[in-house]
Amino acid sequence: MSQHSAPPTPEGGPAVGHAAASRDVVSHRGLADVVAASTAISDIDGRAGLLFYRGYDIHDLSGAVSFEECAHLLHRGDLPDREQLTNYRAELAEGRRLGATTEAVLTTGVATQPPMEALRTLVSALSADDPDTGSNAPDANARKAARLVAQMPTLVAVYHARRTGSTVPDVDPGLDIAGNFLLQITGRRPDPAAVAAFDECLVLHADHTMNASTFAARVCAATLSDMHSAVTAAMGALKGPLHGGANEQVMTMLADIDERVDDESARQRIVDEHVRAKLDTDQKIMGFGHRVYRTEDPRATHLRRMSRRLAQLTGEPKWYEMSAHLEQTVFQVKALRPNVDFYAASVYHYLGIPTDLFTPVFAISRMSGWTAHVIEQHADNRLIRPDSEYIGQPPRRVKPLSER
Amino acid sequence: MSQHSAPPTPEGGPAVGHAAASRDVVSHRGLADVVAASTAISDIDGRAGLLFYRGYDIHDLSGAVSFEECAHLLHRGDLPDREQLTNYRAELAEGRRLGATTEAVLTTGVATQPPMEALRTLVSALSADDPDTGSNAPDANARKAARLVAQMPTLVAVYHARRTGSTVPDVDPGLDIAGNFLLQITGRRPDPAAVAAFDECLVLHADHTMNASTFAARVCAATLSDMHSAVTAAMGALKGPLHGGANEQVMTMLADIDERVDDESARQRIVDEHVRAKLDTDQKIMGFGHRVYRTEDPRATHLRRMSRRLAQLTGEPKWYEMSAHLEQTVFQVKALRPNVDFYAASVYHYLGIPTDLFTPVFAISRMSGWTAHVIEQHADNRLIRPDSEYIGQPPRRVKPLSER
Repeated sequence: MSQHSAPPTPEGGPAVGHAAASRDVVSHRGLADVVAASTAISDIDGRAGLLFYRGYDIHDLSGAVSFEECAHLLHRGDLPDREQLTNYRAELAEGRRLGATTEAVLTTGVATQPPMEALRTLVSALSADDPDTGSNAPDANARKAARLVAQMPTLVAVYHARRTGSTVPDVDPGLDIAGNFLLQITGRRPDPAAVAAFDECLVLHADHTMNASTFAARVCAATLSDMHSAVTAAMGALKGPLHGGANEQVMTMLADIDERVDDESARQRIVDEHVRAKLDTDQKIMGFGHRVYRTEDPRATHLRRMSRRLAQLTGEPKWYEMSAHLEQTVFQVKALRPNVDFYAASVYHYLGIPTDLFTPVFAISRMSGWTAHVIEQHADNRLIRPDSEYIGQPPRRVKPLSER
Repeated sequence: MSQHSAPPTPEGGPAVGHAAASRDVVSHRGLADVVAASTAISDIDGRAGLLFYRGYDIHDLSGAVSFEECAHLLHRGDLPDREQLTNYRAELAEGRRLGATTEAVLTTGVATQPPMEALRTLVSALSADDPDTGSNAPDANARKAARLVAQMPTLVAVYHARRTGSTVPDVDPGLDIAGNFLLQITGRRPDPAAVAAFDECLVLHADHTMNASTFAARVCAATLSDMHSAVTAAMGALKGPLHGGANEQVMTMLADIDERVDDESARQRIVDEHVRAKLDTDQKIMGFGHRVYRTEDPRATHLRRMSRRLAQLTGEPKWYEMSAHLEQTVFQVKALRPNVDFYAASVYHYLGIPTDLFTPVFAISRMSGWTAHVIEQHADNRLIRPDSEYIGQPPRRVKPLSER
């Protein structure tokens, strides 16, 4: 068949508006329940509360595999054997350095912007230093995906050091991504239990089917644009408060409640008052409810456990205890369950991560999923170009300026 | 109704995979014929070959309104009267300057990248200098939209000057966006007929419903991310050869054919041979065919006329003549008509625009449409989060590393 029969033209897309009546056009504003792409990367069973990465249940992966093994699984289709893991770790360690152009952009005003704005520009700038920029070939995409996963934590750490006027500690070759990130952000050698917890967080956030940032990446990649363009689009989408940011808002809420506690015995009562005041006025409590899961978000199960464990480890139980009490109250009043963002807040806080870096930390993990989706999109591409419904002015005549 | 009933959570989306069977999930890979959004900005009648901006037929707008009037129409809902136009022009003139951070990024290696890569990072960096960054309020969005439309040609001109080691001529306050861009790119005061033609090109490319870059911008904006994030995503999508870039490829083809002409009388024969060799081997000829239009792309009509006119004006008829003969041959053999990209190539070439800036020039125009769509998305937002179909591994057990 000639390639001309349905060319993926710049403006390609179905006829709409006037001609729409004669075609099979389906209206799905927001695209809920519309399958936009096939994927072999992740799957959700919302009814049973299950999440799978390439067939592996997140309950089995969580705590059992490192973020490096998880990224290998997402990028290359399966968990690595020993030799593959050794090679992949070496590739990541090699790839984590920032190039000259990215370092130069970090000396400009970009580095003084709020985190997700700065990081959107910096992720875009990474392509200038990448030896595989300009190729969408499978091997080039695989190398770029590994580099982006390795560079993302470096970028966040260097950005944070610049704004705090500190220097970034050298990476410890004995630590992986999770450990080195905690080392570089806190400036202290992290406790092995903290490293294990953060590693598990990175695994839990790595992919989640066609969420808005992943979808933005695929729309972009589907024009056969490159991986850096796609993940820059994803960074922009994750920046939106309806996508990233809920975990930051949970932490702000916990800190606000904590501020109001002047007598330790009143803590639970103040939590209760906060919840009821919000729910009585029909306001949203961040970190609860989920469009997908009818039962508990499987990621929340693990994050609750980690928050409890870190509360013991740090000897600062209040963040976990407030969270647990808040969860209980919200469930009693509204039968809503915590989502991935709720316990992530206290976990990240226990790990010493500044609240305004919670979304960048989400991006460190999700970079593995985004890049896997770009690889998959390029491997069997089709332009993603929906239709729109015209709801504007009917046809009208242009009046010359003098008659307007 | 409580906001909790269907929260637009980070990961919000319908249940898929295992649970999909029990839900009303519709599969539309690529989203052709799926209405993803309502819009009052533009409308296409593919059957009749009509394109409307806010109810005005592109045939009426083309040549009758300036790009400034067109951008006002897209951003603010109607063509401006005299006073509105004066104010809007002043706002654009004021907004065109680049700020300190963008200038600083232009001194880094970013400025030596290929055009669309460099410009993706530079557009993202613009937010650092924008006084309305941080607000999605309608008035802030309107100001940001005007600034982005005004800054885009400056960015392309300064980028081009940096890589050619030239200085950018000062803008001429007597010229609008089209005239100043030609002045700054060519370094010469442009012919009024050239300015008029380029102005018309900018109007013709300004919007085209839910094309891939506009859709990427809306997916991004729908997380309530900001305008700079959304247009950065759009730049990334436009960079892909299935979206932007076809006009560059048309020009490369024309130049390649021209190279092979050693005897002027053989020109038409060489064009014919090129077309037939391509079509006989089922290869695509860039700039032909369109998924939307069943008759002539209304924009091609105007671009053909401009190419003919500029051929006379420049005294270099060969680019128009080769294009016209190529069009004729392709129609005879394949009954395919030229799309917006085909005559844009010779037009931009006649105007003295370097071939690798054709896609950035597309972006200068489309920035008006992208920003209008972000304004519209934010005014009545709903998260755009489709479903996916899982086609990967069935559930399997995690083996420890030692057993892999």
